[in-house]
Amino acid sequence: MRAVGLITEYNPFHNGHLHHLRASREAAGAEVAVAVMSGHFLQRGEPALLDKWRRAEMALRCGVDVVVELPFPFACASAPHFARGAVQCLDALGVDSLCFGSESGDLGALQRCAQLLEECGEQVAERTATLLRRGMHYAAARSQVCAELSGCDAATLPLHQPNNILGIEYLRALRATGSAMQPFTISRLGAGYHDDAVGPGNIASASGIRKRLAMGETVDELLPAPAVDVVAGARADRLFPDEDLLHRLLLAQIFRGRDYLQSLYQVESGIDARLTDAAATSRDWQALVDAVKVRQFTRTRIQRTLMYILNDVRGDLMASLLAAGPLYLRLLGSSPRGRAFLGAARKRRRLPMVTNLSRIYSQLKRTYGPRSEDYRLALAMLELDLRATRNYSLLLPGWSGVSRERDFFEAPLDIHSAI
Amino acid sequence: MRAVGLITEYNPFHNGHLHHLRASREAAGAEVAVAVMSGHFLQRGEPALLDKWRRAEMALRCGVDVVVELPFPFACASAPHFARGAVQCLDALGVDSLCFGSESGDLGALQRCAQLLEECGEQVAERTATLLRRGMHYAAARSQVCAELSGCDAATLPLHQPNNILGIEYLRALRATGSAMQPFTISRLGAGYHDDAVGPGNIASASGIRKRLAMGETVDELLPAPAVDVVAGARADRLFPDEDLLHRLLLAQIFRGRDYLQSLYQVESGIDARLTDAAATSRDWQALVDAVKVRQFTRTRIQRTLMYILNDVRGDLMASLLAAGPLYLRLLGSSPRGRAFLGAARKRRRLPMVTNLSRIYSQLKRTYGPRSEDYRLALAMLELDLRATRNYSLLLPGWSGVSRERDFFEAPLDIHSAI
Repeated sequence: MRAVGLITEYNPFHNGHLHHLRASREAAGAEVAVAVMSGHFLQRGEPALLDKWRRAEMALRCGVDVVVELPFPFACASAPHFARGAVQCLDALGVDSLCFGSESGDLGALQRCAQLLEECGEQVAERTATLLRRGMHYAAARSQVCAELSGCDAATLPLHQPNNILGIEYLRALRATGSAMQPFTISRLGAGYHDDAVGPGNIASASGIRKRLAMGETVDELLPAPAVDVVAGARADRLFPDEDLLHRLLLAQIFRGRDYLQSLYQVESGIDARLTDAAATSRDWQALVDAVKVRQFTRTRIQRTLMYILNDVRGDLMASLLAAGPLYLRLLGSSPRGRAFLGAARKRRRLPMVTNLSRIYSQLKRTYGPRSEDYRLALAMLELDLRATRNYSLLLPGWSGVSRERDFFEAPLDIHSAI
Repeated sequence: MRAVGLITEYNPFHNGHLHHLRASREAAGAEVAVAVMSGHFLQRGEPALLDKWRRAEMALRCGVDVVVELPFPFACASAPHFARGAVQCLDALGVDSLCFGSESGDLGALQRCAQLLEECGEQVAERTATLLRRGMHYAAARSQVCAELSGCDAATLPLHQPNNILGIEYLRALRATGSAMQPFTISRLGAGYHDDAVGPGNIASASGIRKRLAMGETVDELLPAPAVDVVAGARADRLFPDEDLLHRLLLAQIFRGRDYLQSLYQVESGIDARLTDAAATSRDWQALVDAVKVRQFTRTRIQRTLMYILNDVRGDLMASLLAAGPLYLRLLGSSPRGRAFLGAARKRRRLPMVTNLSRIYSQLKRTYGPRSEDYRLALAMLELDLRATRNYSLLLPGWSGVSRERDFFEAPLDIHSAI
């Protein structure tokens, strides 16, 4: 069974994702589509619109065959770490190919950029830093440096758009990890990431869809029918994260003091002082981010730092976890075809597959040995995932589940049929 | 100018407090009434219904002459620590007498109990502990032990009602600190602390009044007119603490893990494990308290422990602060007569009086010396008070002030006339 890997957030699953899923299957000639999907906190430093089980359900009911969770340290991380973690998960699952959407759609152009960044990494980093100090934005600076080094026109390099940038990181990760997965890219249809417009085929960006939802507007025409169901259910039960709750919980953490903040990941360059000042006066989450934003950091990075603060992510631990890579594969759900693939690929799998959290401790101990550093790190990684789930529940006004330790209570979804 | 001291929470100021104020002035033959009042977190382990400035305003407009804040470690503490801290504040202010309300109204009987507890402290503690292990409640156990030791009938000892118990602690504190303040007690009129009924003179308990407010009922007839104003303003601006916010903020702290919890004050005897379990499933603040409650601890103590968790109060630090006693007097407001008293009593004052927070650091350094242990403790005590104010603001749905560091922005209230 040939399987294509997809790297996803599905926040929420929309018509563009359905197109990507179907086009990827076709491009890669794959029978099975395997998605690695972020958990409760996302790459742009935000809580997900819907919890990970609801997002997995949307994906499976729309035709994805396997959904595996990308652990917190990689899901809520810069593009290179995100890409590396996701590629490692797919590779460990025994997936044959990776197909990602990009604005460019030109795999060769993206690969040339990836190679350039690989070969001239230090030069690029140094020169980019110089341009940043002069006030240029990150994407523009890096693009200009790559243009200089490659002798191309910066405008022709696919280094400006967010999905190209991620795609290049996937290609770099494939190379760096020695993965045998074959890369494919397909052109993204419709609106760009930040665009509020609706493109042909009723494709809008996920962020545009979230904005509409926040305004109380309907998004039904922009989502496949199963996703419409799931979103409507969560909305009725008041299970979208609340920004006012997010803001208050963040302030409580920030109020714990600068010594504490400085122990956390990426709280550096005086962010702790700016956070402390901003927390005294900020009226909402966006104002807090605005107050802390400085030129040398992207808004996304500041938001991720706030998610580390919310989740009490220590700097030294996070660095070790990123270096270790994913240490388990958490199955969120599968289709019959997905289960057949997982059975067939069992021998090739290079990380323990977790389906039942109550068995994970003995499973990890058996895999890594009780005294190994990897065992210690796997437990710490798991604790972060569990904590993310607990804290996420605090953001939901209407939460009313059995336990906020949901990771122990939710079995992987078995979906029997999809659209 | 003869001054009578009152130990108060004013949560909120009601007709019973007005009676206590007037009767105290008369009993002690005092021209000036000086209140030491808890800040944002109270002896029963709850956030105050109204912030400390609003509560000071009610008191001053109803005839209190000076309101000084009882620092957090004493305000949110067991009866002996609360009493000791409050007596030390009044004594340091140069107040001549202390007048407290009690159910008994019989100073002699209360003093005999205080003396017995002083003289047979160890015996009482040991025997009480034995009875607690057998399942008896604290007040009943201590009462029975004292009855045995004194040869009295337990029913005749004033050791059951909450204000008698506090009163006895005031008397013990006067004795233990060698205070020259003369004690008086007056009978409480009307309803008991836990009673929802309304007594003669439209006197209801503060907890009964808070319940009515929580149900959206009117309490106007139970409060003096100035207090009605203040309560109505806070209600209109949604500035009562919200239990759902309190619950979520507590859960976020508890989710930080048992190692963290164990570093906090009075998180002992397995409370950390029970908290961790309860936090996963509790639906609201009361359910959280219920789930953690065990026989050997009063509900009040559990609630205080939760306030320590909310405010990140370390065990070792709290013990040092309680041992040090109050290290400054924070003036919240005064009447013209109060200001005259403060001027006249200036020479007798034994702790630095803080009126402007921006000067407090140099003031404390001058008082205690920059390298002294007391200076270090005074800074830590101040940091707790500031943190309590910041965290309290997170509990108010409608908070919209200039800065959550309100302690630096609010000058003491100067009230010119009272009812």
